[in-house]
Amino acid sequence: MRATRGVTLTMNTMSYKTLHQAQGHLGWDNGIEPRVRVGSGESIAFEVVDASGGQITPESTAEAVGRMDSAKINPLTGPVYVDGAEPGDALVVELIAFEPSGWGWTALIPGFGLLADEFDTAYLHHSRYTSEAVAFAPGVRVPTRPFTGTIGVAPAESGRHSVIPPRRVGGNMDTRDLVAGSVLRLPVEVSGALLSVGDTHAAQGDGEVCGTAVETAMNVRLRVSVEKSAAPRFPQVWAPRHARPETTAAGTYITTGIGDDLMTAARDAVREMIDHIVATYGLTPELAYCLCSVAADLHISEVVDAPNWVVSAHLPLGVFA
Amino acid sequence: MRATRGVTLTMNTMSYKTLHQAQGHLGWDNGIEPRVRVGSGESIAFEVVDASGGQITPESTAEAVGRMDSAKINPLTGPVYVDGAEPGDALVVELIAFEPSGWGWTALIPGFGLLADEFDTAYLHHSRYTSEAVAFAPGVRVPTRPFTGTIGVAPAESGRHSVIPPRRVGGNMDTRDLVAGSVLRLPVEVSGALLSVGDTHAAQGDGEVCGTAVETAMNVRLRVSVEKSAAPRFPQVWAPRHARPETTAAGTYITTGIGDDLMTAARDAVREMIDHIVATYGLTPELAYCLCSVAADLHISEVVDAPNWVVSAHLPLGVFA
Repeated sequence: MRATRGVTLTMNTMSYKTLHQAQGHLGWDNGIEPRVRVGSGESIAFEVVDASGGQITPESTAEAVGRMDSAKINPLTGPVYVDGAEPGDALVVELIAFEPSGWGWTALIPGFGLLADEFDTAYLHHSRYTSEAVAFAPGVRVPTRPFTGTIGVAPAESGRHSVIPPRRVGGNMDTRDLVAGSVLRLPVEVSGALLSVGDTHAAQGDGEVCGTAVETAMNVRLRVSVEKSAAPRFPQVWAPRHARPETTAAGTYITTGIGDDLMTAARDAVREMIDHIVATYGLTPELAYCLCSVAADLHISEVVDAPNWVVSAHLPLGVFA
Repeated sequence: MRATRGVTLTMNTMSYKTLHQAQGHLGWDNGIEPRVRVGSGESIAFEVVDASGGQITPESTAEAVGRMDSAKINPLTGPVYVDGAEPGDALVVELIAFEPSGWGWTALIPGFGLLADEFDTAYLHHSRYTSEAVAFAPGVRVPTRPFTGTIGVAPAESGRHSVIPPRRVGGNMDTRDLVAGSVLRLPVEVSGALLSVGDTHAAQGDGEVCGTAVETAMNVRLRVSVEKSAAPRFPQVWAPRHARPETTAAGTYITTGIGDDLMTAARDAVREMIDHIVATYGLTPELAYCLCSVAADLHISEVVDAPNWVVSAHLPLGVFA
């Protein structure tokens, strides 16, 4: 049990092996001693600290964003050694439940994010949330969809690897379909797989465009099993219907970027969505950019009509309550 | 009225100005004489021929794909001159209704498509469809979602421009949200806007990865209006709830590609999905690639965790009836 500004987290640990938030590491390294050993089919509970590693608190201002120690960013809880997992196997992770903490933050971090060159000043936005919705701003409610921003296994290559980029073994995938009820398949590269979890999010759009979601501490329960010689080349997911129920009677607003580079097109689509939100709903550009990151989805609408591709940003209009 | 292998198309043209399929052009050129002139707020009916310009028929085999005359590809019906539309204005296009023809084709065209280097042989797949579903293959039903693959206005730059790449003025956007009930906003670059429509699709996934959708002739009805000095930088869309209702109780299967190039990641995600479909459902690789193009959506899951991005391909499992 731990407290986060009046929101109390309790976890039923009776039937689970539990890793506390202090049982963690920074960066990926297959030489890190496992914190716990489980069998295929066993369930585990993780306490996950927020992506700042506690450097951002409910009392923080943008000043705290500016002086964050990047060496402490995105701590992971783990690793878990799974008996019988060997290179070439698939580690199957069933996400069972999330117990969110009720407070989260979204920040613009100088030098980070899809439009880092246009938003160069530290900015911090706090949100309270329930299991139903994130009270993002007056008149703006984003459906709560807790998921693990970072989940992965240790890479075969020895040494310490930055936690920021995701890899074929998963990691900081920020893939918002990894909600309770989803099943993730990861390729195992070392004996025991060495699973770790971090960077829990209360809500995020495809792309996580400003670089942060609704960043929040959570308890996560999951079950692991091993499928022999069934490693996918990249992570794969089965997601249940409730992973994406956002579209409402209000419909969706879609901006596009069109050109011969997908990254540039993504930037154009997001820039247009920010302008649209500012002009239509009166948010500041910084908050609109944050809203894109937590609620708008980036789609590749076409990637074959050479030389130009279309990237679209989709904002479900139900967020404007 | 026209017939396509026993499927009869009729259109109520009483209250609409109508452009027949012969009233068209190849490529974009602001020097093409308008076929019809309408006022802001007026509705128009378009007969749209399929993207092959009739070169592929229900009797065609892959041999017809190999000898297609690319100069006749993707004919457009139009252009329509809209009174009062001037450069800097927005042309607002409300898509009212589609009358699909009931037969469509999906092809692998040598040298074209996201995995053109891996699928280098001409391939043709026919589908019959109703207003509800495309009978794509035994046991595979894709929800019918008719939309305009190509819709746009004439570019300011004079001369003839290829129809294949989409541009800031729209065109071959292959953006599947352009269904009946959606509202498209295009930037006007020449007097009268010069709107044309083509490349109608019965179903397509985000990305149109194999290069073709369920390609099919349709009648399209839409309404145009002009908003003065309101041009977006790129096309924008409001889409109704029914544009994306695909997720079913069966959930979604998601493959990913992870790396420092969005295009490579998109290719990896699609390659993985093809392998998954082949291994799990027994389709041939060619048909699986076609199924990705007509039913799987490409999402940019994260685009900020430098240096690696995540592109995911989403296949709604309800297609396996």
